[in-house]
This record gives sequence, C-alpha cells and structure tokens, in this order.
Amino acid sequence: MAKINENYDKLAAGYLFPEITKRTKAFQAANPGVQIYRLGIGNTTEPLPPSIIAGLKLGVEKLANVGTYSGYGDEQGDERLRKAIAEKHYGRYGLSIDPLEVFVSDGAKCDAANIQQIFGLDNVVAVQDPAYPVYVDTNVASGRTGTFDKEKGVYDELFYMPCIEENEFMPNTPCDPSKPAGWKADLIYLCSPNNPTGAVMTRGKLRKFVNYARLAESVIIFDAAYSEFIKDSSFPKTIYEIEGAKECAIEIQSFSKSAGFTGVRLGWSVVPKSVMGGKANALWNRRSTTFFNGASNIVQEGGLAALTDQGRFECNQVIDYYMGNAEIIRKGLDAKGIRHFGGTNAPFIWMQTPGKMKSWDFFDKILNEAHVVCTPGAGFGPSGEGYVRLSSFGHKENIKKAVDSVVNNLKI
Amino acid sequence: MAKINENYDKLAAGYLFPEITKRTKAFQAANPGVQIYRLGIGNTTEPLPPSIIAGLKLGVEKLANVGTYSGYGDEQGDERLRKAIAEKHYGRYGLSIDPLEVFVSDGAKCDAANIQQIFGLDNVVAVQDPAYPVYVDTNVASGRTGTFDKEKGVYDELFYMPCIEENEFMPNTPCDPSKPAGWKADLIYLCSPNNPTGAVMTRGKLRKFVNYARLAESVIIFDAAYSEFIKDSSFPKTIYEIEGAKECAIEIQSFSKSAGFTGVRLGWSVVPKSVMGGKANALWNRRSTTFFNGASNIVQEGGLAALTDQGRFECNQVIDYYMGNAEIIRKGLDAKGIRHFGGTNAPFIWMQTPGKMKSWDFFDKILNEAHVVCTPGAGFGPSGEGYVRLSSFGHKENIKKAVDSVVNNLKI
Repeated sequence: MAKINENYDKLAAGYLFPEITKRTKAFQAANPGVQIYRLGIGNTTEPLPPSIIAGLKLGVEKLANVGTYSGYGDEQGDERLRKAIAEKHYGRYGLSIDPLEVFVSDGAKCDAANIQQIFGLDNVVAVQDPAYPVYVDTNVASGRTGTFDKEKGVYDELFYMPCIEENEFMPNTPCDPSKPAGWKADLIYLCSPNNPTGAVMTRGKLRKFVNYARLAESVIIFDAAYSEFIKDSSFPKTIYEIEGAKECAIEIQSFSKSAGFTGVRLGWSVVPKSVMGGKANALWNRRSTTFFNGASNIVQEGGLAALTDQGRFECNQVIDYYMGNAEIIRKGLDAKGIRHFGGTNAPFIWMQTPGKMKSWDFFDKILNEAHVVCTPGAGFGPSGEGYVRLSSFGHKENIKKAVDSVVNNLKI
Repeated sequence: MAKINENYDKLAAGYLFPEITKRTKAFQAANPGVQIYRLGIGNTTEPLPPSIIAGLKLGVEKLANVGTYSGYGDEQGDERLRKAIAEKHYGRYGLSIDPLEVFVSDGAKCDAANIQQIFGLDNVVAVQDPAYPVYVDTNVASGRTGTFDKEKGVYDELFYMPCIEENEFMPNTPCDPSKPAGWKADLIYLCSPNNPTGAVMTRGKLRKFVNYARLAESVIIFDAAYSEFIKDSSFPKTIYEIEGAKECAIEIQSFSKSAGFTGVRLGWSVVPKSVMGGKANALWNRRSTTFFNGASNIVQEGGLAALTDQGRFECNQVIDYYMGNAEIIRKGLDAKGIRHFGGTNAPFIWMQTPGKMKSWDFFDKILNEAHVVCTPGAGFGPSGEGYVRLSSFGHKENIKKAVDSVVNNLKI
C-alpha cells in the first residue's frame, strides 16, 4: 500500500498567501464594487524594458530556424549566462567566481526550496524569525524540524533567530546557552535585504555569521534576491564581499525582482568549490543533473540581456520606480504616525500594527476600513506578530490611492 | 557541523550521459577531423513550427506592455493551459480530467524526479528494467533503495521488473514469490512508450497493472512523455484509457518531444483526486506551491499554441519526420542483419548488440568503426545489457549518413 510523506502533516497551516486570497475574496463577495488596493504579495507589475524584450525575442527566433534551434542545454545553465553572472554580476564587486560554481535555475524559490536536499536530515537548521516561509516549509516536508508547537507557534527542532526592533531586525548568531555546550546550527538561512522586514545586514553583522559558520563548520544559505534594491553601498550586496564567505556560504539569486522575471522564471545559485571541501558543489551538480533539466533557453537569453550594461541600466530604472513607491508608503505611514522599518534599501516596508495589534486582526481591520491588502507578520514566524508587510510593487497611481485610503480611512 | 545527504554516495555511477560525452570527447581528441554521428541522447533537432513560434512571441510581447504584463502566476499553471490540457489533450480520448487535477511544470524530468517526495520513505519502489535513470536515481538520493550491489548491478531494496525479449519488453506486475506472502510494490514507475526500449504497453498489459495497483493499493507513476509517437491506435496513449486508472495512477506528460520543447521546458502531471482518497492531489498541490513557482509565462503561451488544432497538426509533421528517421535506422539494421525492437510507435530503437556483446564494449566498437554514438543499454538497468539505444532525433541527412556508416563500416 502506498504511504504518503507524513512530514507534510506537520506543516502548520496552508501557505500564507492562499489564506490572504481567501479572506480577500470573502471581503470582495461581501462588498461588491469596492476598490481593493493590494500591498500584499510582492509581485512585479511594470513591463519588461526594451533590451530584455529584445533578448527574449531573440531566444524565440533562434528556435524558429534549423541553424540556431537548440534542444536540451546544460542542466547547470548555458555557459554564456554562467560566465556573464560571474563576470558581470560578481565582477563588479571585484569578486572572482568560477562559472562552474554558478548554477542557473528557474528561480530563487526553487533553489531556496531544493538546496536542503543535498544535506542530511540530521542537520540543525536555523532561520531568521520572521523569514520567507519557503525555508521553513521545505525543511518541514523533508523531516528536519520536529512537530509544530501550536502554543508557541514554533517547530520543536528548528532554531529561530529573532529579528526584532531591539537588534535592528538583524539576527544574532545561533547559540543557545540554555543547552549543554551551546546548541549550534549546521545550516543557517539568511536573507538580506530580508523578506519580510526589509532589514539589510551590515558588513559587521554578516562578518559575525561568516566567522561563526567557519568555526562551527556550518553552511550559510544566503538569499540575496533583493540585493539590487540596496542603494547604500555601505551594505554588502553579496555575502562574498565578506572575507571567508566562499568557504562556508551558498548564495541564491534571482532575476525576479531585479529584472521583473517573477512570471518569466530565472535565478541562480553560487555553490563555491571551497564549501565542505567541494562536496556541496559536487552534490548540487549531481542534484541539478538528476532532478532538473535546465532553465528555458528562451528565458536564459532574456537573462543575458538583463546582465548587459544597457539591460542593467533599464532594470535599475524600474527598481527606482518601485523604490519611489516605497517612499510614498513610508511618508503616508509617517503622516499617520504609524511606526515602520525597512523600505529604504528594500522593496518591503515592515509596519508595526497600531497598539501592537495581532497581525491577522490588523489584516482584517485595514482591509475593512481602508480596503488595503497587506501580509500579516505572523505568517512569517512568531516574531512577526505585531507587524504587517507592505510591498512597494505596484503601479504608482494605485500605491498613491492605497496610501491615501490608509491615511483617510484607517481608524487608529 | 553541516552534514551532507549520504544517500548521494549510493548512486552507482555518474549519470549515464556524462560518461558518453567523456568517451566521445576522448575519441574526437584521438581522431581529429573524423565526422561523428550522434544517435545517443534523445534530443530534438528540428525548429519549432510557426504557430508555436507565434505563441511564444505573443508571450514575450505581453510582457512588454503594462496592460498585459503578468508576474507570478499560479504555481499549478495558468488556468487556460490547464483547461486546454484537460479538454484538448484528454478530451480527444473521451476522458474527463478536472483542470484542478492538472499541474503544469517546467518539464516531465522534474515531475518524474520530484513526485516521489510526496510519498513516505517506507514505500517499496518498482521500476522497469531497463528504465529512464531518473526514476531510480531520485529514489536513491531520497533513501528508498538500499545500497548498490556492484556484482548484480542492482539496488538491494528496489524492485526491478525485467523488460526482455521473452515478455516483449513489457514488464510483469511486481510480485516476488520467493518472499513470504509475496513482496509487493507500493510505487510503480511505468513508461510507455518506454525509454529506452521503444516498447509500447498493450491495453491488456496495462490493465493488469491497474488491477494490481487497485488490489495492492499501490500508486502507478505513468510517464507518457512519448505518447504522441504512437500511431497505432490499438495502444493506449494515456493510462486513463484503462478503466479504474484514475483511482491509482498519476500521469506525467511533456511538450519536449511532442512539440520540440526540450530546451523550452514545459510539461504537466495529472494527479487525480481519486488517488489515495485525495491525499496525492492535496500533497502534490502543497509541494507545487512550496517548492515551485510555476512554469514560465512565455513558455505556457507556447504550450497553449501547441494544443490548438493547427499547433497539433504542425507538431505531428515534425513527429512524422522523426519517425521517418526511425524507419531509415530500422531498415539499415535489417540490411545489416542486426536484430532490433521498438522504433515503430516510439522514437527509440532498441538494438541487440551482435553476439550479445557487452553494451559499453559495443559503444566503443560502433564509435571506433562507424563513428556513431549510441547509448549503452546497461546504463538503463541490468536487463539493458546486450542492447544499445538508438535515437531517431536528428537531421535526416545525418541519420542517413550514420546508417550508411554502420552498414558499410561496422564489422560483424
């Protein structure tokens, strides 16, 4: 008799966003004709710039002719794209990344989800709290987290690193003095700029994590999907700017937010050969060739266009547009006297709920009063309670209307 | 200290195709200027037909305009495409598939690799022998197969279903009378038309598997990636043509070979709600939303075009072209007096090595004498020994030259 993977039963609740969709639909059904403003899911809204469109069209046209048609490519990604990532993306920070350390994928979410598969089930996993739910849920499904403690809102065997106002939303390195000899983490997920808080790790803080990982022989899984939103160059845009990181860190990157590829699907991971004496690179390579068949050749042509100087220039204009939205949101919240964080080097604003109201209660309140959809902080971990995430992805006119509606209609 | 997933150490050898590449490169280096004919990897070579190119271009153009741009889509796939798959693909067999049972992916390889994740580690897995290596390797990496017995060339805890001349390369249902109460399989991978043998399961044979699975409460994972090559309508093109299959079978499908999407990347799985009382559908849905972020929106537009009447007509012309190649190969082998199977309702020809020579030895022989690259049967499982796989994917002029070279130069 076939038996299911019972780890799935441990998943605390439905994925965050379906619940948001459900409540939003219920509101719409009860209030037909009311205009809803969506500041919830971080989904890009602006069209792709001309050079990327040209790259994608070239990708399609190549498939129309016998001389340029291509079938299966390397599972690890087109060599031209892996070189461009090494030279154009990492080269600008003066970093030397071998194209054989770069693995192109169909997006950062898949890599963030799948990377845990190359590690044993007996690793202690540490996550930022709050964090992007994928890190937690994929480790739950694989059986590394123990069961969910409903009262505390945590998994028994998962190491939570609180990101709270007291530490400027930057986690402390995972040590638990209450456990004998100090409980240490083997796999550490970090996201900077963080989703959902919008907090960016300083060089000093990130250095502490790299030193910790080298000492404890841990591996850091560094999600840099929002790095292009960092405008203040004092913050590191890749973990490899920190000395020693190539010995202990895997970096995950994405074209989703930097080039508007949320629906187009393209990302990459860097797995340095110096991590775990080469084992991580060898296993990720084996996993890629066995479980994956490469990103779309059309889409990879688009990625190549995004990494040209002109492509980056055009993409940065779109990023500036979204960051203009973030400023509108921040000013609106200021005018209303609502406390908030992030939103200066990240597309997300981490808004404190008035009176530290429960985040799902506030979700209902702002939806009912201002017709704005946000993302409840509790969906990202227990330390997200008392906050909601606002996203700056959207058409500017809608962002303005949403902010006006909050300023005029939210009762606080 | 971070620990790796030690199941990867159990993988018998490098993936088959890298070894072929290595030997071919060594031959090329030793014999510069010699023209090599590749009948190895089953990779499409002919350009995409006009209606698909138009669909893909539409997908790109939509992203250039603010009114038609789209970001994240449903992880399960664009509803229009899921409906088209249900209505256009399954509808023509008079089958009723709910679009909520259809999950669009970036290709059948990924689905074939990932589907095992929704099942527990305590399931007994049965595979055809020979079979597409992905079924075996992904179960090895997940820890379901035990260790590799080098002498026998098998994994201790994997159930092999031999596909040999005596059973017309169609496996028998997995029962082991040597074990107490008969060892039964919980998860059964079937591929028809089979890769590598090119054998197509008859209705009668497939009915036996469905009956077995219903009785044993097993789940069949049916890979139908090559179904469009079936020209003889007496063979089932989908497992759902068999009564009761919707209670026990998951079907995996692909646009790779049917529409030339090997590099474009698009496939789907059908997970009926009636399998395991709905659990399989619910878990695959949860897995898709957690580990995946949808297939590329551009590529899905191409898939929609492939499912129109005109798209199918054009794709079938390309399939006929490849099947013409298969005929050239079969006739060449006949002229040479070499025994072979498959290649009439499948793109693969399963060639018996002269004198039942070891398949890797014959690989070297045909490469050295006729300059033809084939795929050694042993790479697909122990029952593949004594055979090689020839692929009909290629330009017709190259296929003709390859066959001429075999006829004129191979010494048997």
